[in-house]
Amino acid sequence: MQVITAISEMQQWSQQQRRMGKTIGVVPTMGYLHDGHCSLIERAATECDAVVTTIFVNPLQFGQGEDFERYPRDMERDTTIARAAGSSVVFAPTTAEMYPSGFATTIDVGPIAERFEGAFRPGHFRGVATVVAKLFNLTQPHVAYFGQKDYQQCLVISQMVRDLNMDITLRILPTVRDQDGLAMSSRNVYLSAEQRRTASLLYRALQAGIDAIARGERRREHINKRMQEILDQIPDARIDYAAAATAERLEEPDEFPPGASVVLLLAVRIGSTRLIDNMLTTVPYD
Amino acid sequence: MQVITAISEMQQWSQQQRRMGKTIGVVPTMGYLHDGHCSLIERAATECDAVVTTIFVNPLQFGQGEDFERYPRDMERDTTIARAAGSSVVFAPTTAEMYPSGFATTIDVGPIAERFEGAFRPGHFRGVATVVAKLFNLTQPHVAYFGQKDYQQCLVISQMVRDLNMDITLRILPTVRDQDGLAMSSRNVYLSAEQRRTASLLYRALQAGIDAIARGERRREHINKRMQEILDQIPDARIDYAAAATAERLEEPDEFPPGASVVLLLAVRIGSTRLIDNMLTTVPYD
Repeated sequence: MQVITAISEMQQWSQQQRRMGKTIGVVPTMGYLHDGHCSLIERAATECDAVVTTIFVNPLQFGQGEDFERYPRDMERDTTIARAAGSSVVFAPTTAEMYPSGFATTIDVGPIAERFEGAFRPGHFRGVATVVAKLFNLTQPHVAYFGQKDYQQCLVISQMVRDLNMDITLRILPTVRDQDGLAMSSRNVYLSAEQRRTASLLYRALQAGIDAIARGERRREHINKRMQEILDQIPDARIDYAAAATAERLEEPDEFPPGASVVLLLAVRIGSTRLIDNMLTTVPYD
Repeated sequence: MQVITAISEMQQWSQQQRRMGKTIGVVPTMGYLHDGHCSLIERAATECDAVVTTIFVNPLQFGQGEDFERYPRDMERDTTIARAAGSSVVFAPTTAEMYPSGFATTIDVGPIAERFEGAFRPGHFRGVATVVAKLFNLTQPHVAYFGQKDYQQCLVISQMVRDLNMDITLRILPTVRDQDGLAMSSRNVYLSAEQRRTASLLYRALQAGIDAIARGERRREHINKRMQEILDQIPDARIDYAAAATAERLEEPDEFPPGASVVLLLAVRIGSTRLIDNMLTTVPYD
C-alpha cells in the first residue's frame, strides 16, 4: 500500500489508474479509523480495482470553539488499519497542500445543509462539500463510500454530486455499532468510562423512536418526545436536537403519512463531547 | 459533428473518449457564435483529439432585469459555425436538464468575484462558476478554452480550478476585435448603427489607458481619467467602471509599481446594451 501526501502525486496515481481502465473507490475520512471506516474500505475493496482511503482533518468544516485542535490523530495506526482493510493508497495531504495561501472557493448545497447539523454548526457542510469536491477531483473515483452515521452529510454530498453532474456513484453503508449500540465514532475516545456507559442511551432513544413509529405513532412531536425522554436520563447531557424528519429532504411535518421514509436524528453533547446518530424507518400503513 | 442535448449522452461520449485515450478540449459558450468563439474552437481543434463546444444560455448567471430573455439565440447558425471551426460535438442542453427541480448547489470563488463585474452583477460569477463546474464534469476536458474578453471570468474560473483541484488546463486566448477595435460579443447585435459607430470608443479608451501607462503614468486615478475622458464622448453611455487594477487579483492601489502587470477594465452601457472589454499591460521601468 502506498502512502501519498502530495497532491501532484495523487493526481498522477489517479490518472494512471484511469488510463489502465481500473475502477477507483474512495473512502474519505478524517482518520483515527474504526470499524465503521473499515466496513467502507472493505466494501470498496470488493467492488473496485483500487481503493484510496483519504485521511484529512479538514479545518474548513470545524467551527470556532469546536474540536479541530484536539481531534484524535494517529497516522501510523491509521495506515496499518487501512492496509489491512484493503486500501491500495492512503492519501494524507497536509493542510497547506489542501488550502494554500489564496484559497477562497466554497461549495454551498442549499437548504438541505441548513437544518439540524447545519443550524448547530454554521458553515460545517460548506466545509464538507468543498473538501469532498477537492478529494473527488484529486482521486477521480468511480465510487465513493460514506457511512450512514453522518446521515445529513450523505444527503449533502448526494446533492452536490447530483447538482454538479459529478460522474460518481455514492454508496452509503450502515452505521457500525458497539455491542451496546453506540455508533462507532472517532470522537468516542473523548468519553470517560462513565460517559461511555450512558452514551448507549443515544441508541436506545433512537430505538424508542423507531418503536413508537412501528406501533403507529405518526405525530412528530410525540415521536421526538419518546426520544427526548430517554436522552434526559443521560447525566451532564445537552441535547442539540432529537428529531424525526423526512428522510429525503429533512422536512418536519406535524404528522408523517403512512409509507413515509423517516429519519430519526440525534445530536447530543455529553460533557464536552458531541455525538450524532440516526436511524431510518418507514411509517407503517394501518 | 454530433449535436448532444442529453446529459447522459454527453457523459457517455466523454467517458468513451477518455477510455480511448483521446484528449478532450471544451469551449464553453452561450452561443450566437462569433469570430472570438471560432478562434477558441479552432485552437482547441489543433491541440486536442476531440472538441466539445457547449452552447447554453445560463439563467443562473443573469440577474433580475438583465438580458436573459432577449439574449440572441440561433442554434442552426451556431451548429454550422461550430462544425466549420472544428468541433466534434456541440453540447446544447435544455435549462431543465441543467437545473432540474431541487437543484440548489452554488460555487463561490471568494474575493476575486466580488469586484467590478461582481459588484455590478451580484451573483453573476456564482452562476458562472457553478455552470462551468457542471460543464467540466459533463465533458471531462483536458483543456478548456476561454476568451480574454471576459477577463474577470477567466480569473474566477482559474481560481475555481486551482482551489477545487480540477485536473484541467485553462487556455485564455486574445480578444478578437472588429476592424475598428470593438471586441467581438454576441451582444453587439443589440447596437443600433449609430451606437455601433461610437462603440469603438471603448477600444480607444483602453488604448488611451495603455498609452498613458507606456508614457510613464502610474497613478491609478490618472489612468482611469484618461479612459473616462474618451468614454464620455459616447452619447447615451453609462459607465459602470473604467478602471486600472492589478492583473492577478484586481486590486486597486493608488499607484502601480514598475514591472506591475495591470489590467484595464471597462463596463459601459450604450442605451440598453452593456459591453465589457479589457487590455493587459506592464508598467515600464523608468
